[in-house]
Amino acid sequence: MTSAADTLRILPLGGLGEIGLNMLLIEYGASAIAIDCGVMFPEAAMLGVDLVIPDVTYLRERPDRLQAIVLTHGHEDHIGALPFVTREMPVPTYATPFAHALLEHKLEEHEIGLPLERFKAGDSWRVGPFEIEAVHITHSIVDAVALAIRTPLGTIVHSGDFKFDHTPLDDMPSDIARLAALGDAGVLALLSDSTNVERPGVTPSERSLGPKLEAVFRRATGRVLVSTFASHLHRIQQVIDLSARTNRRVAVVGRGMVQNIAIGQQLGYVRVPPGLLAELGELKQLPPAQVTLLTTGSQAEPLSALSRIAMADHRQVAVEPGDTVIFSSRIIPGNEKAIFDVINHLHRRGAEVHYEKVADLHVSGHASQSELALMLNLTRPRYFVPIHGEYRHLVRHAALAEEAGLAPADCFVLEDGDVLEIDAAGARRGAPVTAGRVFVDGKGVGDVGDVVLRDRRHLSDGGVVLAILAVEQHTGEVISGPDLISRGFVIEDESQAYLERAKEVVLEALAALAPESRTIPAEVKEEMRKALRRYFKKTLERRPVILPVVMEL
Amino acid sequence: MTSAADTLRILPLGGLGEIGLNMLLIEYGASAIAIDCGVMFPEAAMLGVDLVIPDVTYLRERPDRLQAIVLTHGHEDHIGALPFVTREMPVPTYATPFAHALLEHKLEEHEIGLPLERFKAGDSWRVGPFEIEAVHITHSIVDAVALAIRTPLGTIVHSGDFKFDHTPLDDMPSDIARLAALGDAGVLALLSDSTNVERPGVTPSERSLGPKLEAVFRRATGRVLVSTFASHLHRIQQVIDLSARTNRRVAVVGRGMVQNIAIGQQLGYVRVPPGLLAELGELKQLPPAQVTLLTTGSQAEPLSALSRIAMADHRQVAVEPGDTVIFSSRIIPGNEKAIFDVINHLHRRGAEVHYEKVADLHVSGHASQSELALMLNLTRPRYFVPIHGEYRHLVRHAALAEEAGLAPADCFVLEDGDVLEIDAAGARRGAPVTAGRVFVDGKGVGDVGDVVLRDRRHLSDGGVVLAILAVEQHTGEVISGPDLISRGFVIEDESQAYLERAKEVVLEALAALAPESRTIPAEVKEEMRKALRRYFKKTLERRPVILPVVMEL
Repeated sequence: MTSAADTLRILPLGGLGEIGLNMLLIEYGASAIAIDCGVMFPEAAMLGVDLVIPDVTYLRERPDRLQAIVLTHGHEDHIGALPFVTREMPVPTYATPFAHALLEHKLEEHEIGLPLERFKAGDSWRVGPFEIEAVHITHSIVDAVALAIRTPLGTIVHSGDFKFDHTPLDDMPSDIARLAALGDAGVLALLSDSTNVERPGVTPSERSLGPKLEAVFRRATGRVLVSTFASHLHRIQQVIDLSARTNRRVAVVGRGMVQNIAIGQQLGYVRVPPGLLAELGELKQLPPAQVTLLTTGSQAEPLSALSRIAMADHRQVAVEPGDTVIFSSRIIPGNEKAIFDVINHLHRRGAEVHYEKVADLHVSGHASQSELALMLNLTRPRYFVPIHGEYRHLVRHAALAEEAGLAPADCFVLEDGDVLEIDAAGARRGAPVTAGRVFVDGKGVGDVGDVVLRDRRHLSDGGVVLAILAVEQHTGEVISGPDLISRGFVIEDESQAYLERAKEVVLEALAALAPESRTIPAEVKEEMRKALRRYFKKTLERRPVILPVVMEL
Repeated sequence: MTSAADTLRILPLGGLGEIGLNMLLIEYGASAIAIDCGVMFPEAAMLGVDLVIPDVTYLRERPDRLQAIVLTHGHEDHIGALPFVTREMPVPTYATPFAHALLEHKLEEHEIGLPLERFKAGDSWRVGPFEIEAVHITHSIVDAVALAIRTPLGTIVHSGDFKFDHTPLDDMPSDIARLAALGDAGVLALLSDSTNVERPGVTPSERSLGPKLEAVFRRATGRVLVSTFASHLHRIQQVIDLSARTNRRVAVVGRGMVQNIAIGQQLGYVRVPPGLLAELGELKQLPPAQVTLLTTGSQAEPLSALSRIAMADHRQVAVEPGDTVIFSSRIIPGNEKAIFDVINHLHRRGAEVHYEKVADLHVSGHASQSELALMLNLTRPRYFVPIHGEYRHLVRHAALAEEAGLAPADCFVLEDGDVLEIDAAGARRGAPVTAGRVFVDGKGVGDVGDVVLRDRRHLSDGGVVLAILAVEQHTGEVISGPDLISRGFVIEDESQAYLERAKEVVLEALAALAPESRTIPAEVKEEMRKALRRYFKKTLERRPVILPVVMEL
């Protein structure tokens, strides 16, 4: 019989049951490390929420357990929650150079001091009972790694976010040899990225975009405006190279992208020919056919340069007939409507627009089925845990692992808070722990919960009606009111008569109230609420939030 | 010089600038007919709105102009606004048999009596200066037609929603010969469906789904649950036929689908082998491999049977491991999150789930590029107006028409409210007219406008805070309060201290107010609002709706 001290625990706090929010604990005895610490962007129903971060109650209740945080790459869904978590738990945090540089800026903004260590693919280091090794893999950001974590019970391989791009732009394909060597030496468990498990075959190489982008550039007679993700340095490099080749100068629009390109240049990941980059103002002198604009805003973020350009609301850039706009990006679910609004507006200004539905000018950074099978075959794990996905992705990835030869009993579909325990006797599910989503709204972290969201939904659905009544304290006689004030309910100017009638309905209901109830404000309020609720339901089939106020004079 | 009386006007009131809301006027002199009268389903930002209908102010201001409404088929985005428009303008309305039957139910529900005429493909009839002919076309609903409208200036062809399915399930392909004959005789203007203009090639035939559905049915060892659109009788027929062939009985779950199948049987469009249909209760006796459930809810409508089954909240159906669920439907933009929630839950219950991303078990009802070009080549119009689409679709369809040989000057990209005028001298844009979207919220039509929606958005984003203060009437001295009541702002129980501090902030602000202002309620209110706004912004970066109430005692 093994004791808890000899048990290895794989414990996802986020990212297993959603896209984003990635954070997973690996625990042995009383020591844990976290892999990634990411945010999730709020779903439409999370009204007013700016960010979602993982609930780390489990760690909070076990002080000193967390020894370190290791980040697989610099995307927000892997590093975005770090300032929030490390404010409470300032543990050593390990990041690759690009992620490290992004984090320095981020932690400075949040005024957090943190022991922030830098590592490179190929490095190994020890944290408590764990020996951590970083393995280079390809993804839609530079400096992405998989992790091999040697534990007293065997090696865990965590894929990070990856694809097997055999012809990446920097000629550094994933370190397949190292993954194979880990497999040869024996892998206890593989935790692998499920994001693209619904796609058959292989995700195309980043390099495959070159000729397609070039065709559009060569055909363009006016300016070319390329919108992509600010952290995608390889995509940015392609646009820079292509602009140089087609005799265009490039202006970068958007603070984040300017910063990332500067970091990329410092780290040697982005190479810009001298004199190629220009300020927007300088480009006004050039013929449109010699201008490229490189910008963010591919998700139609309302304040982004691209959205403002589309709405003809940008100080320096006006799109004109003859201009070409390229969305070199995917449409992140939930953003469809906003993105298509931007695309429609760009068409109205006469631009030729290339976007996901009609052009193939983006490739994913995540492995498709065939690559996922390759990862399984390289590492040949004893146990398999699909990570990074909604439930359907995880189930499908487990099924793929079974096709790749794993026994169903060795594949564990976990969700956030589920625990996989491994000891000398084997692997099994443990008792689940607290996990979940914490909402960040403005400066507030965790002060918006399900009840607040339910109220926001109710308010958004029917608005609010405030009913104010003044009564005589001793008799309950109505002195004035009810006054009705509404927001988001009906067009008040056009509904005067309707609202007058609602007041009468309240007075009628109060007149019917038993005399002994009239002097109890709580009962008067409840009667007002009920009368209005009934009236609005019957006449309009609506349920605004009703807030009755009774003043006793 | 021609007079207004000799001018033909093509005047879209909806559907040119959005998917749905289809309604288009054809006017000659003082007579107009409307083609279609559809709703649009609200976008996420239209908080609390149930339906969107076209703004018919233009017709309202010109009584007696509208002579008739002609409906091309029975989909909601073509007939859904009819009860709202005909309540005001009860003009003769023409519908094909299936649409006619659907409308009888709908008008009965709305208690509207209307001269509702029935026509079939091939019929011709006269309305004012127009001779209308219905031409059979294929679509994702039976009884869909294109219209040829003969006017004193020439023939207008309106495609309706269509595809060229050469092997439809009922062996009745689109009447290509008639379209070609119209082209031979001369078409003044073609108005054609742009929905699928972004798709290259040809939309697959409905019949092509047969073998694919059959493969899933043959492999299924448990129950098969097929979810599709309630009005898609051919899809329903395929599921019925397949169930009969694979020895399954079929229960239909969902009131709308039951009703549509009954209508389909009456009209001879649906053939059900005797004894095949069963009540849900009866199927409990059968082995799962002999059961098909046919249901709506493919868009994850919250109250639909499918959503309740997925949430394990259905009285009669519980999905189990071994069951197969087929989404024979597309994911309508905006519904992604809800649909994937349902799909994730079905996976949690152990079902095998086939849906758009991983299976090809749906075909569109709209023509792709090659079919759109065929429609242009058959009709060879003098002028072309792309209809049914967002702006980008319309632009792309106009470009396709130019590739098909039309002169750019003869292609008119119109939006709702734009007018195309044609007379003996040619075609040109006229002055735009009033058009737009009217919101239906519960029983209210048009009493929710942009200001109400803006308030709902504000409420949904930050909630509402009510601040109640009682002051002495003559001195302005604070007698009690402020009391703060909030909804959707912060978790009140956990934020007591914060809200207490907010009250102090209000009192401090009022204390600093000039004595002459303290007795003016409007100024006191404004000061309370400003103090709270500043405080919430500074401490939480939030902007709830603040409603100050001042009672003078």
